[in-house]
Amino acid sequence: MSRPAPAGRRVAYGVDVGGTKILGVALSAEGEVLAERRVPTPEALGPLGDGEEPVEVLALAVAALVGDLGAAVDAPPGPGPVGVGLPGFVIDGVLRFSPHLPRAVAPPGAPESSSFAARLAGALPGAAPVVHNDSNLAALAELVLGAARGMREGLVLTLGTGIGGALVAGGAVHGGAHGIAAEVGHMVVDAAGPPCPCGGRGCWERYASGGGLARLAREAALAGSIPEAVVLAGGHPELVRAEHVTAAAAAGDPGCLRVVEQLGWWLALGLANLAAVLDPERFVLGGGLVAAGEMLLGPARRSFASLVVGKAARPDTPIVAAALGERAGAVGAALAASGFLGALPPRP
Amino acid sequence: MSRPAPAGRRVAYGVDVGGTKILGVALSAEGEVLAERRVPTPEALGPLGDGEEPVEVLALAVAALVGDLGAAVDAPPGPGPVGVGLPGFVIDGVLRFSPHLPRAVAPPGAPESSSFAARLAGALPGAAPVVHNDSNLAALAELVLGAARGMREGLVLTLGTGIGGALVAGGAVHGGAHGIAAEVGHMVVDAAGPPCPCGGRGCWERYASGGGLARLAREAALAGSIPEAVVLAGGHPELVRAEHVTAAAAAGDPGCLRVVEQLGWWLALGLANLAAVLDPERFVLGGGLVAAGEMLLGPARRSFASLVVGKAARPDTPIVAAALGERAGAVGAALAASGFLGALPPRP
Repeated sequence: MSRPAPAGRRVAYGVDVGGTKILGVALSAEGEVLAERRVPTPEALGPLGDGEEPVEVLALAVAALVGDLGAAVDAPPGPGPVGVGLPGFVIDGVLRFSPHLPRAVAPPGAPESSSFAARLAGALPGAAPVVHNDSNLAALAELVLGAARGMREGLVLTLGTGIGGALVAGGAVHGGAHGIAAEVGHMVVDAAGPPCPCGGRGCWERYASGGGLARLAREAALAGSIPEAVVLAGGHPELVRAEHVTAAAAAGDPGCLRVVEQLGWWLALGLANLAAVLDPERFVLGGGLVAAGEMLLGPARRSFASLVVGKAARPDTPIVAAALGERAGAVGAALAASGFLGALPPRP
Repeated sequence: MSRPAPAGRRVAYGVDVGGTKILGVALSAEGEVLAERRVPTPEALGPLGDGEEPVEVLALAVAALVGDLGAAVDAPPGPGPVGVGLPGFVIDGVLRFSPHLPRAVAPPGAPESSSFAARLAGALPGAAPVVHNDSNLAALAELVLGAARGMREGLVLTLGTGIGGALVAGGAVHGGAHGIAAEVGHMVVDAAGPPCPCGGRGCWERYASGGGLARLAREAALAGSIPEAVVLAGGHPELVRAEHVTAAAAAGDPGCLRVVEQLGWWLALGLANLAAVLDPERFVLGGGLVAAGEMLLGPARRSFASLVVGKAARPDTPIVAAALGERAGAVGAALAASGFLGALPPRP
């Protein structure tokens, strides 16, 4: 989709770099998506050519995407505000830790001039790109334009392969002391649990993410309790994936519904932990897993109500679906860069 | 101890109501403790007389303590600012949930006039007592006068029988949406763990508190691995208590040192969870358990460094001992009431 920007109107560009794809939007001052583009993440393409640096290749891909978006909306020459979300710890604009983009991480002691932000600035003359953590940007978008509007205290979480998140405090996205708060997927909920790629054991995202559903599904398939999902997987229990379970559950299969309920219980366990720590007024949940809708959110709400500490005395904590879908990160990046409609709070 | 307030100087009273004792202080405008008094909590005295209401009895006990403190510092007649900390959820000044003071909890739907705060106001004519959660008040005291001075983002935790805590955000105590944040002791770290009086299972405070140490100690005593502590317990493994282990560990007993190290690991596990969620700049730890000092904090720091997510990229998060000891809650209560030196942030 794309639409020319009305003459004289400002356009901001937002780009969300994921482990497999890059999604960019051109956003109007009214928060309308005027154009959208996506390309595969070069990082995911495997080995690079001789002498190619991953950070440089990534910066050039993002710059090209911004160029395409500018052309699509027929904006004045030269980039407007550009915001980019990266998956991982982004400290002072530099990517310092990223299980999903390991090759783009700045080595310890690397000069800031070699960072992704500096390379992108070089590839986009005239722009001063703003680089933040992707989950914080998705939360900003939900806060300004989506399901977190008006929220003062709460969490915006993204349930995908893992679990990303952002804190909202005082009505703004809150990054903690160094902008790396809300790595909630790596909260340990089962000290003796299975190992996590992060190096820990029993992290919440081993249970309550797309990856967690896949694990629950495999166990159930091998135990013979979800034959419908096995049919969808071509008769091979070991090939059962998360989407087979949600599809069969949506069709009313009792075994698959039980698996989704289990997933809801694990989701609720982590939300109850976060409620104990943060006392949020609301949880806003986005990401691929939330496409399962009430089938997942219903059991999660029921389990949360029974798990959360001080349940009888605690005001209700609604658990609601996010509104902006997979564009949230890119829209938030454009918002952060433009200051049109909102901004991340200044560093303390 | 007590000392008259210098003529013309203002005095604030702070009272910390615990499950077993009530501790009160008279605080000068300079943050100096001029007098200190303690009495047993009536709640802990067992059955009350016919027609006695626990909330009324508690309010009268606190009012009497404030009267004693006023007499001790020779302050002008009539109470000055009075702050009180209660252990549990304090929502709009009303105690709504408290495992340690269950009889003082306001029943659902009870009028505000029957609350502890209202009874205390009745018992202290001229005062408008300020009532808050005890952990938030202890954090306020550490923030204004103790080991959290200058901290913008972080946590102040109290390791006692359980684990209490308070968040600090933007340089102020942060209560969340309803003032009941930082119930960190009830963060589940072991989904299949032992039951907790809160109704959950595997809560952090089952492992990393005084109660957790007692459990580790009993297990080690029965397994025969801490004979020195058993000697201190009069030769009865089943009578080994936390303080026997810390005493024998302080004397260099290897088995007891191992138990304290285990405790440090569990402490670090929860701190790593909190670091993942909150990105604090510092942890300030108080409470009886921290009397073990470096013997506990050393292993906790080492385990934290190996457990926290993104350890290679994350800025250091110091783990330091609190400064104000068991008076922190009472001092914070006086500060909150007086506004002399700081105040809890307004409700959002």
